[in-house]
Amino acid sequence: MITGKNYIGKRLSGNGAKTYKTFNPLLNIENENEFVEASIEEINEAVFLASDAYITYNQRSGVEKAVFLNRIADEILAMDEVLIQTYCSESGLPEGRAKGERGRTIGQLRAFAALLEEGSWVDATIDTAIPDRIPAPKPDLRKMLVPLGPVVVFGASNFPFAFSTAGGDTAAALAAGCPVIVKSHPMHAGTGELVASAIIKAAEATGIPNGVFSNLNSSGIEVGVQLVKHPQVKAVGFTGSIRGGRALFDLAAQRDEPIPVFAEMGSINPVIMLPEALKNRASELANTYAGSITVGSGQFCTNPGLLLGIESGGLDNFIQNLSEEIVKIEPSCMLHPNIIGTYEKNKKSAIEQEGLVVAADYGSEVAVNYARQAIVTVEGKTFLENTKLHNEVFGPFSMVVKCKDAAELKAIVSNLEGQLTGTIISDNNEISQYPHIIAALQNRVGRIIFNGVPTGVEVCPSMQHGGPYPASTDSRFTAVGTQSIKRWVRPFSYQDWPNDLLPNELKNANPLGISRSINNKQTTAAI
Amino acid sequence: MITGKNYIGKRLSGNGAKTYKTFNPLLNIENENEFVEASIEEINEAVFLASDAYITYNQRSGVEKAVFLNRIADEILAMDEVLIQTYCSESGLPEGRAKGERGRTIGQLRAFAALLEEGSWVDATIDTAIPDRIPAPKPDLRKMLVPLGPVVVFGASNFPFAFSTAGGDTAAALAAGCPVIVKSHPMHAGTGELVASAIIKAAEATGIPNGVFSNLNSSGIEVGVQLVKHPQVKAVGFTGSIRGGRALFDLAAQRDEPIPVFAEMGSINPVIMLPEALKNRASELANTYAGSITVGSGQFCTNPGLLLGIESGGLDNFIQNLSEEIVKIEPSCMLHPNIIGTYEKNKKSAIEQEGLVVAADYGSEVAVNYARQAIVTVEGKTFLENTKLHNEVFGPFSMVVKCKDAAELKAIVSNLEGQLTGTIISDNNEISQYPHIIAALQNRVGRIIFNGVPTGVEVCPSMQHGGPYPASTDSRFTAVGTQSIKRWVRPFSYQDWPNDLLPNELKNANPLGISRSINNKQTTAAI
Repeated sequence: MITGKNYIGKRLSGNGAKTYKTFNPLLNIENENEFVEASIEEINEAVFLASDAYITYNQRSGVEKAVFLNRIADEILAMDEVLIQTYCSESGLPEGRAKGERGRTIGQLRAFAALLEEGSWVDATIDTAIPDRIPAPKPDLRKMLVPLGPVVVFGASNFPFAFSTAGGDTAAALAAGCPVIVKSHPMHAGTGELVASAIIKAAEATGIPNGVFSNLNSSGIEVGVQLVKHPQVKAVGFTGSIRGGRALFDLAAQRDEPIPVFAEMGSINPVIMLPEALKNRASELANTYAGSITVGSGQFCTNPGLLLGIESGGLDNFIQNLSEEIVKIEPSCMLHPNIIGTYEKNKKSAIEQEGLVVAADYGSEVAVNYARQAIVTVEGKTFLENTKLHNEVFGPFSMVVKCKDAAELKAIVSNLEGQLTGTIISDNNEISQYPHIIAALQNRVGRIIFNGVPTGVEVCPSMQHGGPYPASTDSRFTAVGTQSIKRWVRPFSYQDWPNDLLPNELKNANPLGISRSINNKQTTAAI
Repeated sequence: MITGKNYIGKRLSGNGAKTYKTFNPLLNIENENEFVEASIEEINEAVFLASDAYITYNQRSGVEKAVFLNRIADEILAMDEVLIQTYCSESGLPEGRAKGERGRTIGQLRAFAALLEEGSWVDATIDTAIPDRIPAPKPDLRKMLVPLGPVVVFGASNFPFAFSTAGGDTAAALAAGCPVIVKSHPMHAGTGELVASAIIKAAEATGIPNGVFSNLNSSGIEVGVQLVKHPQVKAVGFTGSIRGGRALFDLAAQRDEPIPVFAEMGSINPVIMLPEALKNRASELANTYAGSITVGSGQFCTNPGLLLGIESGGLDNFIQNLSEEIVKIEPSCMLHPNIIGTYEKNKKSAIEQEGLVVAADYGSEVAVNYARQAIVTVEGKTFLENTKLHNEVFGPFSMVVKCKDAAELKAIVSNLEGQLTGTIISDNNEISQYPHIIAALQNRVGRIIFNGVPTGVEVCPSMQHGGPYPASTDSRFTAVGTQSIKRWVRPFSYQDWPNDLLPNELKNANPLGISRSINNKQTTAAI
């Protein structure tokens, strides 16, 4: 049942004065439930509880934390149809997507649980003592990763499950041993509360201390600002716009004690279509890309917003085919009137730039809050000179850039802002003729794709989701996959520490049987 | 031979208008050579060359980079006595220390070379494709660490070799594949130029491209500011004061494209002396700590500036013994008149705080630029209430805090700023009576030491040198040991990339024979 209240640790609380409702974009009406924004006192209490819980939660074994994460997955799965219905009514997304995203979320929780059960993720590194070394004895040193402290996670508008309440950031932080305070996304406060209730149930069932998880409602920016500025908060996770992510990054950097912010922000995900491929497969590529541009109404961070080719008959064919194909696709509902409003505004402002040509713009009548997909084209020179054209248009929109030659293509790629992904479409090994373009693209992205589409972010250890700024605020980490746990931990060394007081991960006997580096050799052996 | 010029890549250049000299604190006179501060044009050229060299250097194999690093070590060792003489004349440090620090520097370079030769440090992670997976095929994904781009390294005042021109930051960045621009420390510009010449010689001998290394002179802050703000600079390494490190961090965070700054800054390195140990070993501990506080004139970042105990006869004995021992130690010369000036100023300002009691202050005549060591004591309550007392006094100075009980001790530890190290002195397993104090200390430091001294930072994989702010600006990394390479790299994923175009680290055949994670299993096997 949705109460509209905040979870301050395990306690439901709604003392704030400000209330708001979520919105059903499909029906174009407000949803029924009223949500109470967290008050300053509730924010402070949530952080106080988290800070307190950190000391004990941090000492739970990997297996204990794994039981908790698996139980969260179980509790989410066990929820009745209200969860999926709420998701759909707060996002306009279809039931299939809701169930798919729930599966992804549960898969992430279980992947972190498996990581904890195996245990080697802590990077245990041991150098044993050499007491008789000349000129000075070598001490015994043992290092492992430990949690940073309370983490604030901002729910994302476009992934009510997988990048929100119990999404990747939360799962990674809880796995790391960090208490989590979620700043619930205002567009899906009901989904957030339901998922939060599953986490609280799981915490109660598995003896996890009060304060390891809280869920705060907010309709504006105040709750988030208070959280990021709070001295006891030690790190922040965010998925959303460049403006939002940068604002949080700036706040965190300006604190007396700056804290890390991992913000996964916008990206236009450039796709380079090489001449042979365009010549041989213009129609097939147009089909594939019409699908990739419009999937989920273009509301994915890896949506291909920039298609780059060298002027040729193949490129012209591709543009024509893509323009024909994309308007055949049935438009779909966007997440919220604000999102469709911003989409239409950004699309209009892009189209108004000098030199832009509209190749396709869905013209038939659409239902309210449905997005009209569009394709525009522009000369390479114009794109190079007008960086406004590099801005993301969040939605089913893509820009085809017609470069006059490979040199101009390389210049464009070299001057791109940081991106989550880059894609190369190549036939007959023509890719090997463009090593400098590939090198330039690698330098601007976190993941590079061969003959595919950027949409679809596989959850696995070798996924890199994050890239040079502004794709993310710290390219040294990923937001997807079990390696994303590294955002919330720091290395910690014990020098000459008594064996029985060491954590199990570092004890001589290796009671957990994990893989450790001992005197520069990776082994599961005891000492 | 010292020319006083900058190395802009391999070219000596001295076009700037501003010149300065280094200072011999032992003789209290300026050294002869005149150094030319880098001009804006020279700064821009160095960055341009670095940015250009990045593309090719980045593609050198680990073995090629290892040959370069080993050659740098060889060239430094091969330099004649002028190097050691210059080091001593620019720092006031004795020849033994110079040679020891040279050994450490060479050891670091060779350790990174060995890491590159072995090759597994890139964290190669592979998930092979499952084309027939339902509902969607799983792509082939392969991830490894790649260099960030040009790195700026600030030379440290207190380690003219080991944390400067060819020190840990430079060695780690060059190993990572990042070109390095050193902002030479003004106090040892001659040492810097000589070491830079060794790096340039090594680059020439091993075919490393021009621009992979530059060395810029500067007497003030302008050169550093220009470098950190330059759009083509991608990361910064710094060792020094909180004020200096924070200024660079702020500059980097305010850029259009923020970049990571790893600044290893001040620390007072708390030492908790438990009652039994004080009762049983007051005199021995006093001896040990008199040495640790004064070693290198207290100019180490791990100098123990804060000694914490619970009021008792043992603590009084310790204070008395420490006060007697420390004044028996012969004072030594500090690095520069500015450093001794700041030391005397900070010491005076600490002593003037209400409640401070001077237990020892070296009273005899000392040579100019020699530091007078001092010990002060203060009640726990006073220390808790006056955070000015938490400020580092860089030099042979330490404060003993007399806590009224374990609860006050815990409160003090919990409220400390972040520290590089924390030390516990314990007898007869008394440490097990203080789990909450130990937990609080762990939460504030990067390395915890049992029955030892914090001075002496072993260079090995399990060393953590870095801690919660302000010990460093990013506690998720270390400044010492081969793991410090992680500061200058980011993960990068290839999706469905053709095998022959993959880097060797990720090819099916595993031609480098490195350890890789393949479908979640660590192995050196081919695919």
